[in-house]
Amino acid sequence: MRCRVAAPREVTYSGTDRHDGSTTLGGYSREYIVHDQFTYPLPTGLDPAAAAPLLCAGITVWEPLQALGVGPGSRVAVAGLGGLGHLAVKLAVALGADTTVISRSTDKTNDARRLGAHDLIVSTDERQMTASRNRFDVVIDTIAVPHDIDPYLRLVALDGTLSHLGHLGPVTVQTTDLLVGRKKLSSAGSGGRPATTAMLEFCAKHNVTADVELVPSKHINETLERLERNDVRYRFVLDMSDLS
Amino acid sequence: MRCRVAAPREVTYSGTDRHDGSTTLGGYSREYIVHDQFTYPLPTGLDPAAAAPLLCAGITVWEPLQALGVGPGSRVAVAGLGGLGHLAVKLAVALGADTTVISRSTDKTNDARRLGAHDLIVSTDERQMTASRNRFDVVIDTIAVPHDIDPYLRLVALDGTLSHLGHLGPVTVQTTDLLVGRKKLSSAGSGGRPATTAMLEFCAKHNVTADVELVPSKHINETLERLERNDVRYRFVLDMSDLS
Repeated sequence: MRCRVAAPREVTYSGTDRHDGSTTLGGYSREYIVHDQFTYPLPTGLDPAAAAPLLCAGITVWEPLQALGVGPGSRVAVAGLGGLGHLAVKLAVALGADTTVISRSTDKTNDARRLGAHDLIVSTDERQMTASRNRFDVVIDTIAVPHDIDPYLRLVALDGTLSHLGHLGPVTVQTTDLLVGRKKLSSAGSGGRPATTAMLEFCAKHNVTADVELVPSKHINETLERLERNDVRYRFVLDMSDLS
Repeated sequence: MRCRVAAPREVTYSGTDRHDGSTTLGGYSREYIVHDQFTYPLPTGLDPAAAAPLLCAGITVWEPLQALGVGPGSRVAVAGLGGLGHLAVKLAVALGADTTVISRSTDKTNDARRLGAHDLIVSTDERQMTASRNRFDVVIDTIAVPHDIDPYLRLVALDGTLSHLGHLGPVTVQTTDLLVGRKKLSSAGSGGRPATTAMLEFCAKHNVTADVELVPSKHINETLERLERNDVRYRFVLDMSDLS
């Protein structure tokens, strides 16, 4: 029997630092030394704290919007209005798409409007869901918990796509819900350097950033508790400058 | 309590004839009276028996090939070499695609070559499947029984599509298998009049028909038994002219 020695995981957090062997802390670091080929210039006009979530939530929703050709006149729906969802709405609106939020209740109607959305569908209202069948070229599903995707697939128009982003587990789909209307199921996550650079430039031009709450890092525990309760609109950003 | 009276099912087989209330027999009829708006002219040069399966199997695979933009230089794989699969190979080849058959064994290597395929991958050979990861723009999955689609999704290239056609039940997919490579899962079934007309014209031009075995209708029971054993390459066509 032979043993295999695993290579150290050289990732930026929960990985192994290649120099001193310590655990990497990623965004929980006060300072980070990184090769310039892995950095992005922050375009003028973007607030650093509000721009920070663009590099994960932002690029995650930017990728499918770009890959699926969303632009002026596209009909886009965003299911789930959280960290990913609120950026999907802002970006889709800035791209010129006719943009609708799908939410479990009307609680987020004002938020949806403030973010620029043109309509809101209540997913628990069967009448509204039925009336919106085959209505959208692209549905961005950012719901973070396991859920039945067939109701969202039914909202997709002929040759349209449901991009399933929020929950990364296995997902089951009725083939006939794809077949009728030649619909597609897709996903996306993060993006490469050219796409991220393009997104940052687009965001600077269209004044798109995340809605953030900036908290001192010493409040991390309270912040994680609030995150657990989903008590954030829409992203926390930790200010690490209070670390010695 | 109110009762609802169901409308008669006015479909062409196993439905209710709107005139005499009898059960419609579809393709098991010797003659059929139909409005000319639901007919297609058979292009010159196409054998009627060999063209018959084009109107179901043919259009079912033509639709995704067209919707997904398959043409010269496209990399297409066809999983399962049966009624749907053999037509998918012929059409993909005629469209100029680099076409590969995926089969459980090498039994169908000669058939694949004869149909025009450029390569064959044995799906039970893990080495071959691994070597073909991210290789195809389009994978047409015509396998008629429930099966794990993830191995086929892994063969799809960046921004490519797996078209799941052969089995119409629910299908489960690992979201990460879609996410990495921005892959899409789709399906298709039959097609409308413009697509069917275009397909028939394409088939006449490129001399594409199904490989059929023409059997007298009086041999129907034996034929159904052979169908059960999968003993057909690749479609039976019943000759109804022996009916009185």
